[in-house]
Amino acid sequence: MTVPYKTYLTEKELPKQWLNIKAFMSDVPPLVDPATKKPCTLAELSEVFCTALAEQELNVTDKYIPIPPEVSDFYKLYRPSPLVRAYGVEKALGTPAKIYYKFEGNNTSGSHKLNSAAAQIYYAKAQGLDAVTTETGAGQWGTALAMAGAYFGIKVKVFMVKASYDQKPFRRNVMAVYGADVSPSPSELTAAGRKILQAHPNTLGSLGCAISEAVETARADASGKTRYVLGSVLDQVVLHQTIIGQEVKAALDKLGETADIVIGCAGGGSNLGGLAAPFFAEKLTGGKGARIIAVEPSSCPSLTRGQYRYDFCDTAKTTPLAKMYTLGCDFIPSASHAGGLRYHGMSPVLSKLYADGLMEARSYRQTEVFAAAVKFARIEGTLPAPESAHAIKAAFDAAEECKRSGEAKTIVFGLTGTGYFDMKAYDSFLSGGMTDGEPTDAELGAHRQK
Amino acid sequence: MTVPYKTYLTEKELPKQWLNIKAFMSDVPPLVDPATKKPCTLAELSEVFCTALAEQELNVTDKYIPIPPEVSDFYKLYRPSPLVRAYGVEKALGTPAKIYYKFEGNNTSGSHKLNSAAAQIYYAKAQGLDAVTTETGAGQWGTALAMAGAYFGIKVKVFMVKASYDQKPFRRNVMAVYGADVSPSPSELTAAGRKILQAHPNTLGSLGCAISEAVETARADASGKTRYVLGSVLDQVVLHQTIIGQEVKAALDKLGETADIVIGCAGGGSNLGGLAAPFFAEKLTGGKGARIIAVEPSSCPSLTRGQYRYDFCDTAKTTPLAKMYTLGCDFIPSASHAGGLRYHGMSPVLSKLYADGLMEARSYRQTEVFAAAVKFARIEGTLPAPESAHAIKAAFDAAEECKRSGEAKTIVFGLTGTGYFDMKAYDSFLSGGMTDGEPTDAELGAHRQK
Repeated sequence: MTVPYKTYLTEKELPKQWLNIKAFMSDVPPLVDPATKKPCTLAELSEVFCTALAEQELNVTDKYIPIPPEVSDFYKLYRPSPLVRAYGVEKALGTPAKIYYKFEGNNTSGSHKLNSAAAQIYYAKAQGLDAVTTETGAGQWGTALAMAGAYFGIKVKVFMVKASYDQKPFRRNVMAVYGADVSPSPSELTAAGRKILQAHPNTLGSLGCAISEAVETARADASGKTRYVLGSVLDQVVLHQTIIGQEVKAALDKLGETADIVIGCAGGGSNLGGLAAPFFAEKLTGGKGARIIAVEPSSCPSLTRGQYRYDFCDTAKTTPLAKMYTLGCDFIPSASHAGGLRYHGMSPVLSKLYADGLMEARSYRQTEVFAAAVKFARIEGTLPAPESAHAIKAAFDAAEECKRSGEAKTIVFGLTGTGYFDMKAYDSFLSGGMTDGEPTDAELGAHRQK
Repeated sequence: MTVPYKTYLTEKELPKQWLNIKAFMSDVPPLVDPATKKPCTLAELSEVFCTALAEQELNVTDKYIPIPPEVSDFYKLYRPSPLVRAYGVEKALGTPAKIYYKFEGNNTSGSHKLNSAAAQIYYAKAQGLDAVTTETGAGQWGTALAMAGAYFGIKVKVFMVKASYDQKPFRRNVMAVYGADVSPSPSELTAAGRKILQAHPNTLGSLGCAISEAVETARADASGKTRYVLGSVLDQVVLHQTIIGQEVKAALDKLGETADIVIGCAGGGSNLGGLAAPFFAEKLTGGKGARIIAVEPSSCPSLTRGQYRYDFCDTAKTTPLAKMYTLGCDFIPSASHAGGLRYHGMSPVLSKLYADGLMEARSYRQTEVFAAAVKFARIEGTLPAPESAHAIKAAFDAAEECKRSGEAKTIVFGLTGTGYFDMKAYDSFLSGGMTDGEPTDAELGAHRQK
């Protein structure tokens, strides 16, 4: 059979459940209350998160969790996303490898983030809430949440990392079209923001800092009708993103293909966790499974240079503690253009799987990532987000490896989004003004637990 | 059967031919040489256009023209595009109408323009040329051409209407990623540009003016290896865009649906011509066919307030004469945000069909168009291009008509592209600073043939 360029599942073939990878694992370290050092309870988490989401966060038993019909209907606005055969890249590289990518950028938020935004906003609505607060790095999560908020009728307040707010002037206009309220972070609106601004008046912000502000704002609503929502890191977000991996698996099955290597960029880890979930599940149930590779920027190398330990999820130390690979919650990465990957920690689930040897990790410098992005755009047409381009670079390298070894492996990578709002970054790369911003060992050491 | 949200054709079902609507018509007035007043010959047109494209321009006999396999392969990078059932809009309007839209925005150029860019660049390559020159209004055509140029290995020189160049700073960065060279128009690079700048130093430019510069630049290449390409108006471009309408027809057939009303925005007319071609063909071969509605901005109302006569395609009067609805080739519309619709004329084929009563036309004010765009984005998720939003507004109105009459008509409109690079326009609308820029009768009168 000739494999088409793009494989779409039909609506009937869309997954009806999320895959709860934690139920396939044992001994996943729980979120912990920093005061009592005890595992967080449902009651505690429900003060900050929607109750249904807090339940999902704590669920270690159900292997599959049904997708509510309202969320499935929302998914149908932009899903299924295509699994694309990168014939052009294969030819350009002269590799015997078969390269596939799952493209999540065909929606206005421009990325996979919408998969979890739809779920989180739906549960907020179902609980009778009025509003949610959140942070956004690259702006894709904020846009996704704004879209879902407009659809379900929930107010959205976004704290946008200042680096991205400045780099991407039109991002906030998109969110405004959907009726969201956006502030640069750190801001003067919260105690956490004011404290950080006092200590670092010229800071460009970080996801950790924006999280602090969003959590504080949600808690400050005396009516109790506001909750905080998060676009990555948490187990619930990885859960929602498993729609990606399940679609990939179903499409590969349809094509009679088996993935040998699965590659995803990793900031907070939800994209990679969602993409790789069915492949992890295979390994965890005794199957051979694929090699799974996490790709991160060398400017924020939590897996490759971080420590596996309990740490706060935010800069102001207001969240529960999560056991994860971390650079230290007070580490603020350089102003890389892959705003969505500028996070000090990593999904606790992925961290455990990495610690257990079920996943590999590697980091790339920003300039080599953009070189891969431009090459990809010229061959395949699609202009990738800087975050996604990390996976492209790793896929190119894996395909080159196959060329050297002569092996016709099947490589699947996640093309998480488009770079339409990242043109300043591309301009900086093309004009030769881009730097890599890798931290020195001494810089990382200052944030390490001794 | 339950109709899915999105209907995708398979690769095998993709049209293998373009539909040449002129071969279904009689007495289509030809392009005319302004000096001799005689129909342009193939030899004359081939000096400016690629030979194969000049042949297509003159072809009034072949009802179908095969799509070259290389172009079909390029199409597969981003086609088939989905036919989407707008369940959300139907519900929000409370209309008995069934609303479908054909979404052409799922590619980096952000619009349907890529359908003709791929064809034109392919023919340039096949002819052994080095480079093409062109104009771009909203920037979508220039981006499309840059993408196709990178893929096939042809240099692309773009003259971008200054209004858009200023409004959309990141557009030229996208074209740069694909290796294109972009100048604002009018420029000092050509005699036509210098002349217009001398007369109107503060002009924001127009498509007509940018065409003059691009044609002059192509002619100036002494090697003979450069040709001019155009993103709309010409019959060849309408021809390539019939991939849209044929896909629509095939998808409707699959669903067992018949279109009652077909709606498209019309600037130069290629999108609407391509979308409606199979429906015109039905009417021209004795079928009932659908109502076909052209939608234009009230700031540039060529069909609704123009004259049907021979006129130049550009401002500097360097092109052949085309018989079309025109506001006069020296009419420069106000700086509307729908840059892709700021053209003084209209596709000669569509003009003839309109004159013959096979098509209706209406115009909308910019502010009501943006109100419809924001409403659509909040319901359906997709953020439309300002040009496409003209069709949305007309579809809303047609659906409201159905609500009043109680008729469950099937409405199909073309959602030609996304508005990611139009955020200044949305910002202007949301902040209340947008005006409509309709020309007065006196202003139009100054450019009319008496």
